[in-house]
Amino acid sequence: MLIEGKNYQSIWPDETDNTIIRVIDQQKLPFSLEIKELRSVEDVWTAIKEMTIRGAPLIGAAGAFGMYLATLEITHHTGIQDHISNAARYLISSRPTAVNLSWAVNNVREKLDGINDPDLLSSTALKTALGICETEKENCRKIGEHGLKIIEAKSKEKNGQPVNILTHCNAGWLACIDYGTVTAPVYLAVQKGIPVHIWVDETRPRNQGARLTAWELGQNSVPYTLITDNAGGYLMQKESVDLVFVGCDRATSKGDVANKIGTYLKALSAFDNNIPFFSVMPSTSIDFSISDGLSEIVIEERDQDEVITVSGYADGEIRSVRICPENAKAGNWGFDITPARLITGFITEKGICKATEEDIKRLFSDKFK
Amino acid sequence: MLIEGKNYQSIWPDETDNTIIRVIDQQKLPFSLEIKELRSVEDVWTAIKEMTIRGAPLIGAAGAFGMYLATLEITHHTGIQDHISNAARYLISSRPTAVNLSWAVNNVREKLDGINDPDLLSSTALKTALGICETEKENCRKIGEHGLKIIEAKSKEKNGQPVNILTHCNAGWLACIDYGTVTAPVYLAVQKGIPVHIWVDETRPRNQGARLTAWELGQNSVPYTLITDNAGGYLMQKESVDLVFVGCDRATSKGDVANKIGTYLKALSAFDNNIPFFSVMPSTSIDFSISDGLSEIVIEERDQDEVITVSGYADGEIRSVRICPENAKAGNWGFDITPARLITGFITEKGICKATEEDIKRLFSDKFK
Repeated sequence: MLIEGKNYQSIWPDETDNTIIRVIDQQKLPFSLEIKELRSVEDVWTAIKEMTIRGAPLIGAAGAFGMYLATLEITHHTGIQDHISNAARYLISSRPTAVNLSWAVNNVREKLDGINDPDLLSSTALKTALGICETEKENCRKIGEHGLKIIEAKSKEKNGQPVNILTHCNAGWLACIDYGTVTAPVYLAVQKGIPVHIWVDETRPRNQGARLTAWELGQNSVPYTLITDNAGGYLMQKESVDLVFVGCDRATSKGDVANKIGTYLKALSAFDNNIPFFSVMPSTSIDFSISDGLSEIVIEERDQDEVITVSGYADGEIRSVRICPENAKAGNWGFDITPARLITGFITEKGICKATEEDIKRLFSDKFK
Repeated sequence: MLIEGKNYQSIWPDETDNTIIRVIDQQKLPFSLEIKELRSVEDVWTAIKEMTIRGAPLIGAAGAFGMYLATLEITHHTGIQDHISNAARYLISSRPTAVNLSWAVNNVREKLDGINDPDLLSSTALKTALGICETEKENCRKIGEHGLKIIEAKSKEKNGQPVNILTHCNAGWLACIDYGTVTAPVYLAVQKGIPVHIWVDETRPRNQGARLTAWELGQNSVPYTLITDNAGGYLMQKESVDLVFVGCDRATSKGDVANKIGTYLKALSAFDNNIPFFSVMPSTSIDFSISDGLSEIVIEERDQDEVITVSGYADGEIRSVRICPENAKAGNWGFDITPARLITGFITEKGICKATEEDIKRLFSDKFK
C-alpha cells in the first residue's frame, strides 16, 4: 500500500543484497518512517519481541525469513538439522500466542528436512519465505474481495451514506505483507468509490490503532476518526457504528478468537447493540487443533512499563511519559478471548463463515481430520 | 483522607481568609501536590471546565462555594437577584451533564431568594456550601458502611482471600469531599483488616484512574494494580474480578447510569461473567426527573486534543505527547450510559437498592411525586 504516494510491502529482501531482510520499524511510526535491517535470527527474534514488527501474518513471514537467515548462520556441516531446529524453536519463542509464527517457521523447517547442502538450504528457505509472502498477499486480496461484499451490502442498506466501521488495534497492511486483513475490504471499498468511515480504537497499551491504523488509513486516503478504547460502546449505543471488523491473533476450530486485549469488550457491545461483528483473518490464523479459546490459548503477559508509560511525539522526538504514581504496579496482558457466540462471522481468504464449528468445517473441510 | 500521612479534604475555605476557597489541583496529581485558590465565580467555572477539580460531589460543592463567591462580587444593591441568578446559570454551564452541580448551585440559590443584605447573602451562601460539604462527607461515610457489607460478604465467600474490585475512573475521595463513593467501602474494609485488591482502569482519555485513583489508593495503603481500559474483560473472563464498583455522574429514576465513558463496556463484561456490578453514589446523583438514560442524558463532547495527546511525567515535569499522526482527527465523549439491566445495584447513603424503578422508589419514596 501507499506511503507518501509510493508502494511498499511491510517486509522484503534487500534488492541488491538478499541476505538482508528489510522491515518498516513500526515502533517509529507514525512519527518517522524508518527501514530496519534484519541480518540474523537474533535480529528477527528481537524485532518480533520488541514489536519493531507485529501483526500475525507479518511475524509469520518474518519467522520464515528468520529461518532463511538461520541457514546463512551455519558454519559447519555437523549438526545442521539441530541448528535449524534450534532456530525454529527460538524464533517461535518470540511470540508464543501467534499461530502464524509457528506455522510459517515450521513450514520452512519441513522444507529443509534432510537437506545438508548449505546453498540449497538457503535457496529453499528463501524461496519458501518469499512464497509465504506471496500467499499472504494473495490471501489478503481475497479477504478484501469477500469482506467488500459485506460493506457493499451495508452501503446499499444505508442508501450510500458512509458505512461506519469500528476497528481495534492494527490489522492493516502493516500487520500483513500488503492490503491487510481488516483493511483489505476497506481499501477495496474506497477504490470502488463506496463511502466508508473508520472508527479507530487507540488500543492501549501500545496504541497500535492511534499510531499505525490511523497512519496507514491517512496515507491511503481513508476517512477515519481516532477514539479511545472506552468510546466504542457509546458510539454503538448511538447507532454510529454499522460494522465491527477486528483482526485475529488465533482462532479455534469452534470459532473463539484471541485478539488484541479489549476486543472482547467491543464484541460484547456489538452484540448488545445488534451490530455485525466480524473477525478478519487468513486461515493460517485458525488453529484447528484447539477448540476452546479461554482454556487452551496462553495469553502473553508483557512488561508493566507498557502500561505505566505512554510513548508519543513531543519537541521533535519520540518520548515516553509516566502516567501514574512513581511506584505504581501494573498488569499487562496482550490478548483476550472473544467467544464464538459473540462473533457474527469470520472473513477469510476462502470466504465468509459463521463462527461455529459446523460452518468453519464447511469452509475448511480439509483441515479437519 | 491521607496525603503523605496528613488528613485533607478536596475543597475547603482558607482558615484565615474564608473569601478564598482552596482545592487540590487534580491536573497536577500524581506528579505534584499543588493547592489552588479560587477567588471568584470565574475561577470556579474555570476549575470545573478545565478539570482542576472533577467528580460529581466535589463539583457540586465547588458550585455551592462558587455561589458564595458570587455574593462577594456584588458591588451595588440593584440587580442583586439577577446577579445571583446569572452566577447560578454560569456555574451550571461549566459541566452540563452533572446533576450534582445544578442541584448544589440551585440549593444555594434558593436560600438566597429574597435576601438583599450583602453580608447576610454571603454568610447564608457560605453556611449552605459548608453544609453541603458536611452532608456529602456524611453521605460518603454512610455509603462506605453500606458498601462494606458487600465486600464483607464476598470476603467470607472467598474465605478471607483478597476481594478483587475493579473500578473505572476516579470515584475516590478526590472526587468527593472526603472518603469517596466507590472508595469509601474500600477504605472502611482496609480499616477493618479485610483484604482487598483494586484493579484500577487507567481511564483514557484523561487517565483519572492512573493518575488519581492509583495515587489516592497508594497514599492510603490500599493494594492496587493499574490496568488499561482494555484489560478488565480479560480479567473477568479469568475470574480475577469479584466485584465491580463504579461511580455515577447521573442516574435515572429507572436505574440507568451515566458515568465516565467506558463504564458501559465494563458493565457488559461483568454481566457476561456473572460478576456483581454496583454503581456507587450519593442520592444527589439520581435525577428523579428522568427515566431513560440514552435519550434523556446529554453527553458532553470534549476537545479532541484530550484523545490526540497524553499527559504524563518525564524529565522532572508534566509533559504532553502526541500519540497519533499529526493531522489525525479524534472524537471525545465524556460519558456513556449503562442501562439498568446490566447493573446489580446502587450503593447509596440511604442503603443498597436494585437498579429498578420499584427498588429505587422503595429507597427514595420521598423523591417520587
